[in-house]
Amino acid sequence: MQITELAQRVVNGERRALARAITLIESARSDHRVDAEALLTQLATTPREALRIGLSGTPGVGKSTFIESFGMMLIGLGLRVAVLAVDPSSSRSGGSILGDKTRMEHLSREKNAFIRPSPSQNYLGGVARRTREAVSLCESAGFDVVLIETVGVGQSETVVSELSDLFLLLLAPAGGDELQGVKRGIMEMADMILVNKADGALKPTATRTCADYAGALRLMRKRHQDPEGYPCAHMVSALEENGLSEAWERMQHLLNWRREHGHFQARRSHQARYWFEQEVKSALLARLETSTAQRMMEGLAEQVGQGVASPTQAARQLLDAL
Amino acid sequence: MQITELAQRVVNGERRALARAITLIESARSDHRVDAEALLTQLATTPREALRIGLSGTPGVGKSTFIESFGMMLIGLGLRVAVLAVDPSSSRSGGSILGDKTRMEHLSREKNAFIRPSPSQNYLGGVARRTREAVSLCESAGFDVVLIETVGVGQSETVVSELSDLFLLLLAPAGGDELQGVKRGIMEMADMILVNKADGALKPTATRTCADYAGALRLMRKRHQDPEGYPCAHMVSALEENGLSEAWERMQHLLNWRREHGHFQARRSHQARYWFEQEVKSALLARLETSTAQRMMEGLAEQVGQGVASPTQAARQLLDAL
Repeated sequence: MQITELAQRVVNGERRALARAITLIESARSDHRVDAEALLTQLATTPREALRIGLSGTPGVGKSTFIESFGMMLIGLGLRVAVLAVDPSSSRSGGSILGDKTRMEHLSREKNAFIRPSPSQNYLGGVARRTREAVSLCESAGFDVVLIETVGVGQSETVVSELSDLFLLLLAPAGGDELQGVKRGIMEMADMILVNKADGALKPTATRTCADYAGALRLMRKRHQDPEGYPCAHMVSALEENGLSEAWERMQHLLNWRREHGHFQARRSHQARYWFEQEVKSALLARLETSTAQRMMEGLAEQVGQGVASPTQAARQLLDAL
Repeated sequence: MQITELAQRVVNGERRALARAITLIESARSDHRVDAEALLTQLATTPREALRIGLSGTPGVGKSTFIESFGMMLIGLGLRVAVLAVDPSSSRSGGSILGDKTRMEHLSREKNAFIRPSPSQNYLGGVARRTREAVSLCESAGFDVVLIETVGVGQSETVVSELSDLFLLLLAPAGGDELQGVKRGIMEMADMILVNKADGALKPTATRTCADYAGALRLMRKRHQDPEGYPCAHMVSALEENGLSEAWERMQHLLNWRREHGHFQARRSHQARYWFEQEVKSALLARLETSTAQRMMEGLAEQVGQGVASPTQAARQLLDAL
């Protein structure tokens, strides 16, 4: 298929074309990369904007069930929903990885939904660029909401939070002692904490957990881009589909406030600058990954290891040659 | 002074010339940098090797007293001793910083000792390169032992451990609960744990602490570059000058074993390669720090922020232009 045709089909919202486009941007082949950039450039001429929602939560908190229920609710409101996974280590097992479409069996059958499993571990440009470009493709395909899921390992939270208009932290009900378990850094990124599994025997614990986190959030510094009462903690049951509409309303309230006060656009603008700087750095370092550079580096490293050249001298020699 | 003359004086072991050479490598001025590299290149023609001992410990464990006593003992054995500080944040206060020569009053008066205070925070090439080059200058000046001290904040441990033949962790006696306080990563770097202040009322606690750490070390994975019984924990009193000779003997035992089995040279070789790769990366990223690059980057970041250019496009544009 020609790039022009692929672009057109993506814009038409064809899910198979979108899947193919994402495969293209994930490819490590350099000719594919050229095509991918041509595609992105072409799509950039007709910009579309989706609401980007980041979602973090450790395995076991019910992320898949939440995405299934929350996604179905959004579709019920007439919205088109895309789901992407950021998984820096796809070798890891665990049911929360989105490759497992069976865990979102209703959503995956919806024509207004698009679910993309985790990419292979060997994606050339790094998790960040792949995800950023995949989000952008989903926007071009006319999705209204893009859910970006992460399992909360290493740098993936930062990637997701720097890509999202709204960052959700999903938690399971837990005793008071476990409150400490959430990394402070992640708490600080969250616009909203959702305590899931507020159903059955866990409901009282969920209520307590939610109150605990609400208290913890109040102790944290108020952010200028938030209205009164945010970041907030909210209780849901993805299983019983309870609290989801209220959660969505609270998100809408936050987003509308931010749009009115210019914070929505400011955040996007700030993120774009951030990605630009990251992209510059990684593109620069990518020059070391060509086979010529690798070969030369290996030879020089050998000399340095034997003490024939100093690290500084050898580094200069390499950079002069490149 | 000409570089040739400075080099000669460093090789002659003149401490003032060494101090001046270190000031030169720490300078942010580009003409100084040229001189510094000429000096290092010249000195590289007559390589000398010192034993590089890294020493980490939080403020209050008695690092200065230890260096004073341990250094004086080494000098008593006829060795020449240089002391360097790695301090990534010299703005921080605290008595353990080596600028405070008065805390090593005997050592600082010894003609066979050289003590270099922490460099200014604004050293151009980063803490790592500055320290690496300073170590190399001390070696050229014929010192037998170079002690590299760090206060254990941020990345400084890694810098020191990647520069050392032997990495010591100095601890104070403490109750069992505080055992957790040492970061596992630092424990894993340590070749030897020294529990200081094993004197007076603290002696029983020191004995217990030492046993605790010996136990903890036994639980950790044995490293192939260590003989039986290492990494080990050992008790010293820097104040009463107790246990220092034994500590030195245990270091000698470890080092001799490593030399015999090729691990000493393998570690140096591995470190040199590591620094080469780090140097290549930072030299590459330094290209973004010229005023032209900064100006161009600012302009493009503005466009990216406004949504006129994509992060990827703008990054390519910048790199093509540089």
